[in-house]
Amino acid sequence: MPPIPKPGFTGSPLVRIDMERDNQPYFDEAMANPSARLLRLDGLAPVLEQDGRLSWGSLAEADPDGDLALLGLIDGAPRFVALARIAPGIDQRMATINGARAMSEPGAAATYAAARSLVDWHNRHRFCANCGRETVVRRSGWARFCVPDAEGIGGGCGAEHYPRTDPVVIMLAEHGDRVLVGRNLNMPDARMYSALAGFLEVGESIEDAVARELHEEAGVIVTEVRYLASQPWPMPSQLMIGCIAKVESPALTIDSSELADAIWVDRNEVRAALAGEPDAPFHMRFPLAIAHTLLQAWVDGA
Amino acid sequence: MPPIPKPGFTGSPLVRIDMERDNQPYFDEAMANPSARLLRLDGLAPVLEQDGRLSWGSLAEADPDGDLALLGLIDGAPRFVALARIAPGIDQRMATINGARAMSEPGAAATYAAARSLVDWHNRHRFCANCGRETVVRRSGWARFCVPDAEGIGGGCGAEHYPRTDPVVIMLAEHGDRVLVGRNLNMPDARMYSALAGFLEVGESIEDAVARELHEEAGVIVTEVRYLASQPWPMPSQLMIGCIAKVESPALTIDSSELADAIWVDRNEVRAALAGEPDAPFHMRFPLAIAHTLLQAWVDGA
Repeated sequence: MPPIPKPGFTGSPLVRIDMERDNQPYFDEAMANPSARLLRLDGLAPVLEQDGRLSWGSLAEADPDGDLALLGLIDGAPRFVALARIAPGIDQRMATINGARAMSEPGAAATYAAARSLVDWHNRHRFCANCGRETVVRRSGWARFCVPDAEGIGGGCGAEHYPRTDPVVIMLAEHGDRVLVGRNLNMPDARMYSALAGFLEVGESIEDAVARELHEEAGVIVTEVRYLASQPWPMPSQLMIGCIAKVESPALTIDSSELADAIWVDRNEVRAALAGEPDAPFHMRFPLAIAHTLLQAWVDGA
Repeated sequence: MPPIPKPGFTGSPLVRIDMERDNQPYFDEAMANPSARLLRLDGLAPVLEQDGRLSWGSLAEADPDGDLALLGLIDGAPRFVALARIAPGIDQRMATINGARAMSEPGAAATYAAARSLVDWHNRHRFCANCGRETVVRRSGWARFCVPDAEGIGGGCGAEHYPRTDPVVIMLAEHGDRVLVGRNLNMPDARMYSALAGFLEVGESIEDAVARELHEEAGVIVTEVRYLASQPWPMPSQLMIGCIAKVESPALTIDSSELADAIWVDRNEVRAALAGEPDAPFHMRFPLAIAHTLLQAWVDGA
């Protein structure tokens, strides 16, 4: 079996140096470093140079009253992103996906993904979930802090908050030499199918969540789960966990509140879909999504 | 290779019926169902019957002014937990671990884990992180909602918030026929070692996070990551993702801000530690933790 292809949004060259995030002198020196660079964003969407590289400016481009996050180092140079305010409700999903596809450097989409998820999280988590007060940026941009006042009375509660990463299981049910792909109710094209997926919940393992989701959405009973690959999906900050799950029987009971349809497909049919053949039995959406990795790995023998 | 042992806190018999969580009549009927049961908790700690089963009471035991969460169904009967207020700073970590070890039913620790994480999350997330206003319980206890007022002015922002699950990578570095175990600075016993671990961050895959953590903590370069198993760890709500990672060289550079020590151990040494032999080269802490699963699977040939 060939190695599993590297999923989109993985393999950033960023060295995160998280052991220095609490070190304010380190942060100040990184800011003063002439090689320091600021990742340019258009809201949450990526900005690319003409050759497809990420666009980096100088720190002077950032709002002097705004907060910065130190993403880490690339090629030894400190890399920052401005924790700018984004208009609420801004989505920029297609700009993100199209931008990430156009990136020419290995791992650039993963560097951008970290920045996008971080900026978005700060925007939607400015207040303390524990006590409701406004929080401040801490740990070089990697946390927010609810500052107690000097006497500890009347100020914030002292809670620290970290960026969220929400695990999602995404999986192919497998029976004999076929796998299951489904079409979500919200898919724009009636021929578009993908792996089934759902958020992992508290109190679940990956294997528990795969079995629950496949049973809920397709009515199948999972007998074995094998993990294949994972990717961050920065809209806003999922961790996609890709698996293949053997099931007892191909009989389906579709949850019509989630899925419009689900079909069993064999390797030749998946190959045609991956190749984008117009008469393939189904079409796929985003080549960067891990559903592609799963289907490619499966036709390769995973 | 024998099958990988089932990690602690997995395999709950709970049927989560999450497609009904938005269905208020379903919730009301479940509450009125004479077979409905309330999971008894002591704060966040489990309450067990003398025979080690989880202790379930009737809904009449819950505060009539408090919120309930519908966990799901077990044996066809609706299972609730009270979203009771817990004194801030309550930890109950050892009561949780000891209680989970004493449970006699398969999957009971996983059922309890879901309830514990949910109750704890509501306690620490009563306010809207987006606008600071107090939120209300929604979706049968599985979300909180920032209610806008009738005119949409002056009320909440309409944000919905879901329980958090924080992915953590936990891994054995492997070189030749030895694996790496480390001793955290906060481990109470100087002979206690375990797998290295760390929170996965935004913009990372599982594989990226494993490579980063091992490089940061032990200075080793990862060449290959294989996933083995996962478990929820309900203190408060981690998803532990267990891997083995081949590394280039056994030379170590220990991050002394995290680790007191790290040592390479072979299969015989791990077997002695798993068996709890007093003269084993290291001791382990919690049998329910996935570090045990990883080490057991590794000595079994994983």
